[in-house]
Amino acid sequence: MYNIIKLDSGVCASEGFFADGISAGLKPNGANDMAFIYSEVPCEVASSFTTNKMTAAPIRHFRAKGEFKTNFVMINSKNANAMTGTKGIADIDEILSAVTSIHTQLLNPVMSSTGVIGVRIPKEKIINGAKLFDLSVKNPHGAAKAIMTTDSFSKEIAFKIELEDGRSFNMGAMAKGAGMINPAMATMLCFITTDATATKQEMQEILDKAIITTFNAASVDGDTSTNDTVILLSNGKSGAFHKEAFAEALHTTMLFLAKEMVRDGEGATKLVTYKVTGAKDDLEAQKVAKALSDSLLVKTALYGEDPNWGRIASTVGASGVEAYEETLSVYFDELCVYDKGELLFNDAMEEKAAKVMKQSSFTISCDLGVANGSFTAYGCDLGHEYVKINADYRS
Amino acid sequence: MYNIIKLDSGVCASEGFFADGISAGLKPNGANDMAFIYSEVPCEVASSFTTNKMTAAPIRHFRAKGEFKTNFVMINSKNANAMTGTKGIADIDEILSAVTSIHTQLLNPVMSSTGVIGVRIPKEKIINGAKLFDLSVKNPHGAAKAIMTTDSFSKEIAFKIELEDGRSFNMGAMAKGAGMINPAMATMLCFITTDATATKQEMQEILDKAIITTFNAASVDGDTSTNDTVILLSNGKSGAFHKEAFAEALHTTMLFLAKEMVRDGEGATKLVTYKVTGAKDDLEAQKVAKALSDSLLVKTALYGEDPNWGRIASTVGASGVEAYEETLSVYFDELCVYDKGELLFNDAMEEKAAKVMKQSSFTISCDLGVANGSFTAYGCDLGHEYVKINADYRS
Repeated sequence: MYNIIKLDSGVCASEGFFADGISAGLKPNGANDMAFIYSEVPCEVASSFTTNKMTAAPIRHFRAKGEFKTNFVMINSKNANAMTGTKGIADIDEILSAVTSIHTQLLNPVMSSTGVIGVRIPKEKIINGAKLFDLSVKNPHGAAKAIMTTDSFSKEIAFKIELEDGRSFNMGAMAKGAGMINPAMATMLCFITTDATATKQEMQEILDKAIITTFNAASVDGDTSTNDTVILLSNGKSGAFHKEAFAEALHTTMLFLAKEMVRDGEGATKLVTYKVTGAKDDLEAQKVAKALSDSLLVKTALYGEDPNWGRIASTVGASGVEAYEETLSVYFDELCVYDKGELLFNDAMEEKAAKVMKQSSFTISCDLGVANGSFTAYGCDLGHEYVKINADYRS
Repeated sequence: MYNIIKLDSGVCASEGFFADGISAGLKPNGANDMAFIYSEVPCEVASSFTTNKMTAAPIRHFRAKGEFKTNFVMINSKNANAMTGTKGIADIDEILSAVTSIHTQLLNPVMSSTGVIGVRIPKEKIINGAKLFDLSVKNPHGAAKAIMTTDSFSKEIAFKIELEDGRSFNMGAMAKGAGMINPAMATMLCFITTDATATKQEMQEILDKAIITTFNAASVDGDTSTNDTVILLSNGKSGAFHKEAFAEALHTTMLFLAKEMVRDGEGATKLVTYKVTGAKDDLEAQKVAKALSDSLLVKTALYGEDPNWGRIASTVGASGVEAYEETLSVYFDELCVYDKGELLFNDAMEEKAAKVMKQSSFTISCDLGVANGSFTAYGCDLGHEYVKINADYRS
């Protein structure tokens, strides 16, 4: 039907998209801190934002625009422009109007921010930074690096989607996210480009569906940010589109980035997949999976590589869903450590379970034995590095 | 109307109650690990237990007894007898029947356990331990110390309540709790004695009300245990009772122990009071207060003594309640750091806020400015010690 081929690229894999990162002096160490994505053709836009009520100014600003096409997204790190009220929104207007007078080809430019909450955005620095943008550059990796905050590596992916009839389209994406990551809509900044001829409505529908099992299934620390943003841009330059292929490529893109984000969670040393089955319904399964990925006691046990399955069982019980000691089973990868009321754990099994936990990535499965609801979530461990990073983030 | 006078004692402050702690060899270092409370007169019993669906065997055993009077509660640490199924319940029957044949004066003895989940309780050790109990000893401090697990200090309080007519009654209590502490009913083990002539119904009603604003308002790590237990015993020996005085003394007792429990949270260095006002209703205020006391980003900022009020605002926004950037105000003790959309923070204020945070105990207040709902919760910081303790609790 179609082939999805991985490319070694990012947001510029889609035809007609340009991107780069520059230093505007926001990061004290001189590292790049501003990025742009520019399309030579105006784009249809689909989006998904945080559920946090203290929505940051860039998101309020975006939403106030209503229906629009754009050819430009500008991203800054170090300052979230959150809790800055109407002044924060006016700051964006002022910045974008200045940037448009520098780069006159811009149409409805969009701004996206990440960083510290509750500090006015440094307009002059941002505008001076935008002067350094060269819109003819294709440097997706530079853009992906510039949007990092506490991330330890940049997160990019790209695909070429070949259709049966010989036509093809491309998709590229970049994301940042290391803390304040929680499954309550998106979780971080993610920008996805495509040259498919997808309409806003088609993209929004596919995006809304993909979010649930990707970014919303990922948790670093259970805290939902004020700035979470996913923006999907299509400029139609390929002349091709195929709904199923597009949906599959988008889901693969978002799942990859969601897992990368968790793997790079602040201080994380392990990426753990929580596979919950046998719940009353999918929603209850999601509740359990989220409770497991957020539990401090589970996260610290992971960090200590301690196969403390009792904390898993206790967290299932505390999550508030229908669950019974007598029907629950718990697995570490393929190893069953608790089977429907049967205590299986002994020294030999502990050794095997500890081996599973020593891996940098593994699966904890819980079969609730109630009905057929299922959900898979992604989480990480919590160690000393998380405390270190977060005990003094502002200074 | 009445006087509530603090006594320097614990569960033996109430007339006719005896208590002690002994070593049954459960703790590898030989420290005391079993305790009892014995009343020379049978007691009315009120109780409150965990909402965790994986309810531990001692709680299932207690509930199965229905209505009963008792004169004996036996507590062990190091093993929670949780996730042990019907075998765990049969173990309790076997233990209690052996203990009753050692101490023949026991009536409907109750067992309560705390410790590791998912391991059968060592019956022989427990029964041999019970042989060492001397029911004529009044050593409340010894009992309070024996029930500690990762606690760093024991938690006790006692009051004499003098009524207008010259009569008086007493109340004494002990508690343990350092991890797996979360406001979703009780949170730990707590045993309260009184010689008031309170009936089961009177006590249960007063206990249920007091729980909400005391133990349920306290959180160490957001994890709800399988074993949380509050047991309130009245033996009527004083011949006195006064409902309002009793309720006030019980609330004071439980609030003190709840705060002590948080202050002694695993690795905690600070006790923080979260006072939420102006919410849509009390339930929404509770939701916000709980979200604040559980947020990893808030807890690590507390540990770092970093006056990062943006994380407070973000957590309010993420809690899912009705809230607006334009009506929210945030205070560190009396210092207003964010006032209804007005960014007040500057270097001078940061210095003042940091000073507030250096205290071992302070208040963070959030006025949501929506309506009149209010709730006060208690939480602690999260530092390296928590990670250290929990990364390797079992071994």
